[in-house]
Amino acid sequence: MRIVRFERQGVTGYGRLEGKAIVPLRDRPWERVMTVGEAVPLEEVRLLAPSEPSKIVAVGRNYRAHAAELGNEVPAWPIIFLKPPTAVIGPEEAIVYPSASKNVHHEAELAVVIGRRCRHVHPEDVPSYVWGYTCANDVTARDLQRLDEQWTRSKSFDTFCPLGPWIDTELNPADASVVCRVNGLVRQSGRTGDMVFGVSALVAFISEVMTLEPGDVILTGTPEGVGPLARGDVVEVEIEGVGVLRNRVV
Amino acid sequence: MRIVRFERQGVTGYGRLEGKAIVPLRDRPWERVMTVGEAVPLEEVRLLAPSEPSKIVAVGRNYRAHAAELGNEVPAWPIIFLKPPTAVIGPEEAIVYPSASKNVHHEAELAVVIGRRCRHVHPEDVPSYVWGYTCANDVTARDLQRLDEQWTRSKSFDTFCPLGPWIDTELNPADASVVCRVNGLVRQSGRTGDMVFGVSALVAFISEVMTLEPGDVILTGTPEGVGPLARGDVVEVEIEGVGVLRNRVV
Repeated sequence: MRIVRFERQGVTGYGRLEGKAIVPLRDRPWERVMTVGEAVPLEEVRLLAPSEPSKIVAVGRNYRAHAAELGNEVPAWPIIFLKPPTAVIGPEEAIVYPSASKNVHHEAELAVVIGRRCRHVHPEDVPSYVWGYTCANDVTARDLQRLDEQWTRSKSFDTFCPLGPWIDTELNPADASVVCRVNGLVRQSGRTGDMVFGVSALVAFISEVMTLEPGDVILTGTPEGVGPLARGDVVEVEIEGVGVLRNRVV
Repeated sequence: MRIVRFERQGVTGYGRLEGKAIVPLRDRPWERVMTVGEAVPLEEVRLLAPSEPSKIVAVGRNYRAHAAELGNEVPAWPIIFLKPPTAVIGPEEAIVYPSASKNVHHEAELAVVIGRRCRHVHPEDVPSYVWGYTCANDVTARDLQRLDEQWTRSKSFDTFCPLGPWIDTELNPADASVVCRVNGLVRQSGRTGDMVFGVSALVAFISEVMTLEPGDVILTGTPEGVGPLARGDVVEVEIEGVGVLRNRVV
């Protein structure tokens, strides 16, 4: 099943994707999936970020080759950081290049969307708390990341967390390809199977620290090949079995 | 004016503190302050954290003597990090000591509560976007902070962000005392006038990165004297002109 959030004639809501149409849902999908009203053609709606997370927990250096390309060791346990909800944008929305940076990078990532409130989850039980998966771009001002000790500023600018185009509830996250293209050229190409810590280990680790709420998003780290974006670029994140998240840089 | 958020007979809302009574408000206080219904004696309600922030932006090493006590330089610009909304608790709620840490510290701080959505605010205009001030405890697992490169995990445990007891809208943040007591003994005693970056500089800096929403909270850093808490301790944060935030460690 694929779940979208969309806007049509000024009204926003969730819907189930069925081919080239969207069937609106009565509630948030993690509460119950009950359709309401008639199907709407996909071209008549604007897709929004498929979740409105109360928090976004991201993971650093979770692919060996990416840790190496920035001159870092692979960590012995997950490095977590937060991105603010104000950074979230949807498919086709613009990434705004901030004047404070001269070196903004793409980071294609698999995003996990939580479906049920949880804390202290055992890794084996993680799948029952995950609603589904979407594509994410953990946009990062690399120069500010290097200047600041903490990563928060460099990763928290408005528009620095594109999510979408929808949530796929059936993906097997064990070994899907994660690709980033800039203006059609492949820049990153990895597989989730190369994560240092897999989805279940990450969710379990994070839930030892904080309660996860329905709709919360976990970014699972980026494979090698990160690089600069320029104003005017079109950046795409494609995850096998999910879809393509496309945004322009302005 | 002092604004509380409270629970009474299972219903929560905002109210205006008037002596030993609370006058309920119709809306969120930053929308408009219109009282509704009759005053309720303070002893009949349970005070909650006075805001429900969509994000909490905190600032590190913002007092010279505190930076020095942990062996750090004063930064040339604010070091910002985020705490998740799930860390917030109110007055008299319990701080839960996590089993993952053996060295949980108190950090008494002045908290700024935003009243109007803003981005790219000039320092001189900051006062018109601030709703008021409250007391905060930026509880930190010091051992995990030293182990992890990023501060997120050590500062993000559930219950690690006590806020309260209310929002004072008239405080002059330029020079108020910030005191922390543990079991009645003074452990931290500083003045906001000793901040490296004052409230206006901090809000302006943060708003260059991200949009601030009404109810969002900014923690302005802690003065020297941070130290360990133990299960059973009662920790108080007192800010001159605001009040006392008290929590027990369990």
